[in-house]
Amino acid sequence: MSKSIEASLFSRHLPAPSIGGTRISNPGHIHLSYGFPATDLLPVQELQAAAGNALQRERSDALHYTGAIGPGRVRDWVLNRVKKVGIEASAANFLPVFGAIQGIDLTSRILLTAGDEVWVERPTFFNALQSFRAAGASIRSFPVDEEGLRVDELEAALLAAVAAGEALPKLVYIMPNYHNPTGATLSTPRRQQLAKLAVDYNFFILEDDAYVELNISGESRPAVYTFAPERVIYVSTFSKTLGPGLRLGWIIASTEAIGYLATLSLGSQLNPFTQEIVGELLEEYDFDEQVNRLTDRYREQRDLMIGELEAALGSDIEVNVPDGGFFIWVKFGESINVNDFYQLAITKGVSFVAGNAFFHDGQGSNYLRLCFSYCSMEQIARGVRALADSYYESVQSEHWTG
Amino acid sequence: MSKSIEASLFSRHLPAPSIGGTRISNPGHIHLSYGFPATDLLPVQELQAAAGNALQRERSDALHYTGAIGPGRVRDWVLNRVKKVGIEASAANFLPVFGAIQGIDLTSRILLTAGDEVWVERPTFFNALQSFRAAGASIRSFPVDEEGLRVDELEAALLAAVAAGEALPKLVYIMPNYHNPTGATLSTPRRQQLAKLAVDYNFFILEDDAYVELNISGESRPAVYTFAPERVIYVSTFSKTLGPGLRLGWIIASTEAIGYLATLSLGSQLNPFTQEIVGELLEEYDFDEQVNRLTDRYREQRDLMIGELEAALGSDIEVNVPDGGFFIWVKFGESINVNDFYQLAITKGVSFVAGNAFFHDGQGSNYLRLCFSYCSMEQIARGVRALADSYYESVQSEHWTG
Repeated sequence: MSKSIEASLFSRHLPAPSIGGTRISNPGHIHLSYGFPATDLLPVQELQAAAGNALQRERSDALHYTGAIGPGRVRDWVLNRVKKVGIEASAANFLPVFGAIQGIDLTSRILLTAGDEVWVERPTFFNALQSFRAAGASIRSFPVDEEGLRVDELEAALLAAVAAGEALPKLVYIMPNYHNPTGATLSTPRRQQLAKLAVDYNFFILEDDAYVELNISGESRPAVYTFAPERVIYVSTFSKTLGPGLRLGWIIASTEAIGYLATLSLGSQLNPFTQEIVGELLEEYDFDEQVNRLTDRYREQRDLMIGELEAALGSDIEVNVPDGGFFIWVKFGESINVNDFYQLAITKGVSFVAGNAFFHDGQGSNYLRLCFSYCSMEQIARGVRALADSYYESVQSEHWTG
Repeated sequence: MSKSIEASLFSRHLPAPSIGGTRISNPGHIHLSYGFPATDLLPVQELQAAAGNALQRERSDALHYTGAIGPGRVRDWVLNRVKKVGIEASAANFLPVFGAIQGIDLTSRILLTAGDEVWVERPTFFNALQSFRAAGASIRSFPVDEEGLRVDELEAALLAAVAAGEALPKLVYIMPNYHNPTGATLSTPRRQQLAKLAVDYNFFILEDDAYVELNISGESRPAVYTFAPERVIYVSTFSKTLGPGLRLGWIIASTEAIGYLATLSLGSQLNPFTQEIVGELLEEYDFDEQVNRLTDRYREQRDLMIGELEAALGSDIEVNVPDGGFFIWVKFGESINVNDFYQLAITKGVSFVAGNAFFHDGQGSNYLRLCFSYCSMEQIARGVRALADSYYESVQSEHWTG
């Protein structure tokens, strides 16, 4: 018998490695690819104090599987906070998770078996695609415009599937606020219509609301969850407000779904130590003030990035102005492939994420995603100019050699 | 169309809810069911100081997806520590996880598709069973005796499967040190033989070594990993030494397996904030001293529990003396069902885990698991006597009514 590892031993549903960030360690490099919050706005001092306080007193319980009082504090804080988007839920509807991505992955696992249909936005978040691929799902995508997912196209596809006797989706995955990567926000009528379709056609909506707090415009809309609480699994996180390194997010869903999700968390209350610290922090912390600091900064950086893009690339690109979140989605002409100047951009000291990472079928190579939250004003200005230089050089060399 | 949730929307591979702990909140209750470390020996002050230090200086990076220096520190510390059990591995063989259970679950997911064979010990850890069930695996079990898994029986089954043209296991799951629940330790010859079988029959071994540090006897054996590094996925954790609430464990495996496992972690370096704190702690902490404190305490508590069990239940039970870990596995006569006195024991103020939780086929109801690490000497003595009272009352009432 063979002593070598046979690839077939590994599951056939394994996704390809993730293609999110760049791994360039040159300290001068400008990571417009990173989807990170602004480092200097993370509440480091406050978390330090909270860690000390949480571990003082009678709190060695903080180190057990279930934690002491932190998990209840975080839960109650979240259940109160989500009222801002109209969500009324109780403790039995809540599950803490290791960041929104684990919420997506657990949802994927309680609902999907190989071959099931998952319908997503086009483009969409690549790590969600990875999770659906790992479940062996059959993925289909529907376009996003300036009002978010084209719910009318999704409805037409449902009707067509029923008429043709084809499989309906078990799950529809959406990012309704400040969508990654397009920045689009789903309009309220479309939210209502999508929720109605979920009820009528018996599918779940996975509402990924990771960016909801990063509301630059000030205008907010009710969560899709509010229109069909039994049909929506709502996921969010502290990653965009307190820091992704905490790995602390949550799911709000029906008690039945929460029961399944909790079972798959396999007996460990999730992240109790971190919950003790964050629970302590939230006790006294002015979270609204933190959110204001973030949105004030991001508004300024978003506007600068758009101004620089328009100045440097003008009519060669199309961009929208997102109402919040982290990202600008840049569209080049149909004949452009951004991968052609990806390496050149890196040599010029800037990185972006090529658009095809966000399409389940590898399309989208005339798009790229830039993040305006992480880099400084100076870096954004310099980074966009380096990006434009790479593009022009690439187009010219095409022209000369083509 | 129906507005009600159809159960069929959920995946058919969902496991039943976990049956690990009891949820009795009466403060006088004695939780001999909990598989927890001794609360007062967890390094609370030290973690508090480490949290402060880790967040000081230039460390807002600690709050990003990848963390700052903590992840490298933890990795290097672990890679050095595992040399104690003979493991020579490098950074490319290492992946941090949210506790050993996530290591088990990720392994399950990279290897298994529905219908695949997983062979386990009988009895075995219930949360591992849950993970294999969630993957839709077909589970088969092999007995454990005082030298651990009966590798000879497993070998005979492999031969028989080959002869009959039946499916071979893709994965064999074992707890070689201080097995949960039996406390048994796999002998070195059996370790070697099992590793050889993995190579010859082309399966992976999932070596769950969560309890390795809790070595009461002082005698240690080389990890199964050392005999077939390409065929073993080795999982361990800080849960039993620093605190389960940290949710920080690790996997050591081939670079190929680590690649798949890392991909399924979906783009987030795992638990960077906690790694910053633990990495800081390990920098100056006398970990050997911590382990000595734990094993000194547990030796005393183990011996007391065994003495009390023998005094109270005598020849009605069989127990072994584990060389380490958390657990005593108590065997009653074949005609006894421990579930018959489970509720009575709770009314008398003590809880245990019924043996059938540890059998994939629901067998084992004449066994129960007691944990000697978590409760105090006084609680252990009182708890065992309450347990014996419940048993005798139950047997007598059987006798009278039967």
